Amino acid sequence: MGNYLVTGSASGMGAQVVARLREAGHRVIGVDRVDADVVADLSIPAGRQLAIDEVLSRCDERLDGAVLAAGLGPKRGAERTIVEVNVLGVTELLSGLRPALAAANKAKVVVIGSNSTTSTPFVPGRAVRLLKRGDTAGAARIITRRGPLAPPVAYAASKLAVSHWCRERAVTAQWAGAGIRLNLLAPGPVLTPLLRAQLASPTGKQVRSFPVPAREYGTVEQIADWTMMLLSPSADFMVGSVVTVDGGTEALVRPNGWPARLPLRSLPHLLWAMKKAPSRGQVADYSALPD
Amino acid sequence: MGNYLVTGSASGMGAQVVARLREAGHRVIGVDRVDADVVADLSIPAGRQLAIDEVLSRCDERLDGAVLAAGLGPKRGAERTIVEVNVLGVTELLSGLRPALAAANKAKVVVIGSNSTTSTPFVPGRAVRLLKRGDTAGAARIITRRGPLAPPVAYAASKLAVSHWCRERAVTAQWAGAGIRLNLLAPGPVLTPLLRAQLASPTGKQVRSFPVPAREYGTVEQIADWTMMLLSPSADFMVGSVVTVDGGTEALVRPNGWPARLPLRSLPHLLWAMKKAPSRGQVADYSALPD
Repeated sequence: MGNYLVTGSASGMGAQVVARLREAGHRVIGVDRVDADVVADLSIPAGRQLAIDEVLSRCDERLDGAVLAAGLGPKRGAERTIVEVNVLGVTELLSGLRPALAAANKAKVVVIGSNSTTSTPFVPGRAVRLLKRGDTAGAARIITRRGPLAPPVAYAASKLAVSHWCRERAVTAQWAGAGIRLNLLAPGPVLTPLLRAQLASPTGKQVRSFPVPAREYGTVEQIADWTMMLLSPSADFMVGSVVTVDGGTEALVRPNGWPARLPLRSLPHLLWAMKKAPSRGQVADYSALPD
Repeated sequence: MGNYLVTGSASGMGAQVVARLREAGHRVIGVDRVDADVVADLSIPAGRQLAIDEVLSRCDERLDGAVLAAGLGPKRGAERTIVEVNVLGVTELLSGLRPALAAANKAKVVVIGSNSTTSTPFVPGRAVRLLKRGDTAGAARIITRRGPLAPPVAYAASKLAVSHWCRERAVTAQWAGAGIRLNLLAPGPVLTPLLRAQLASPTGKQVRSFPVPAREYGTVEQIADWTMMLLSPSADFMVGSVVTVDGGTEALVRPNGWPARLPLRSLPHLLWAMKKAPSRGQVADYSALPD
């Protein structure tokens, strides 16, 4: 069976995915701050490097899949830590582990994003751009200027940055071209320790009144279902997708936000992508078309 | 077992989904122009009404699920027919069948959209708005002004209109509030009779050189996997989502297009949605929270 990495393995969505993978007979390397195969603090560079080194050693440099579920929720005063874990805890780990993923046959990566990316107001675009470049200190400085809104803004900015980073990488020769399928899940309110903490916090009333057209919260079992699907051969034709499982909040807040027609300003990028696609190996092979 | 409607049941994705549902023991009512339980022409009002009446009668006014897979690809001179089938063949059928879906317990609807929504240039926004209102004649007039680009523009406009129509409806009391989960799939190039016709057409060369970072085309089996997942209880917390299964074209062409931070101009809509959510029954019920 396969080798799988799961970050945030000790609780919530991560723990549920670990259980599913082990049930299916796979070897799972769990990474978390406590109760994990690899105990590492993803909020600091040394912790991330430790996680990479330990995972590479334990998987014999061959990973069939990875689920990046470790994440911090909005918390006052923790803006820098939030972006460290939620962005660099994904981007640095994926960069370090990419060769091991490429060594497997059609490896799958699932990154847990969030529907807060599309529904949180006042997210500074500059902070997102800095986060994509790994400048967490600069981004945190901009984010803290949002005052009492800084914690949810830090969370949304971190998930936006990591979503864009993943989509940009997913389509390249180093990822899709190496057989790796890198996709994202964007959950809404799912009953995890993170959501429980939010409900019990001073802003719990706002969390309870946040629009969720499904009229119910999500469960870790449902998220695990979608994660397992994205780890399966059914996802062989899926690259850089964001699967939103959020009870309808995104569709309510931004019904026409996506899909959105291609703006004229994107035309040069489209033409360039079309021109370069064959030499970059980004075209489908129709040569063996069955009759 | 359940009652399911599948349009476009005679070929391609629709036929594959019919086979899966029947294997699972469900009763399937297939609708198509030929070789179907209900033979109906979805390009004309009488055909759509016939389909609605026949399906309601055959399902005893109770539908556990519906898959709207009937669709016409880009074809010169067929702009009006394309939008009739791809838009009204979904919106009129879903409107007519909604009571039967509400009569089931947690019915699921899967509408086949397209990743052409986000990658086709020169789609007139006004045509999309007219299509959402059902004005196919007005939209076709605007679209045909695009000359040789009119066929792909008609296709993309039809899939944009139907995607937005579904997302707007999905979150309402009549749909999500009635237990119905309405979601979309957005495939890229999938080996169906539609794609084969495109490859064999005068624009086949452009289709072959279109960027697909996965380096392969999709299969009807993969699309059926995702359709079955969206028809399953795993989709209970999914409302108005668009699941893109396209080999990475969307992520390549619009990596930062989505998720996108909430623009300031959307703030009034967000605040209004948050204010109205409780009275509209669009909030999650946390009252029975397990410890």
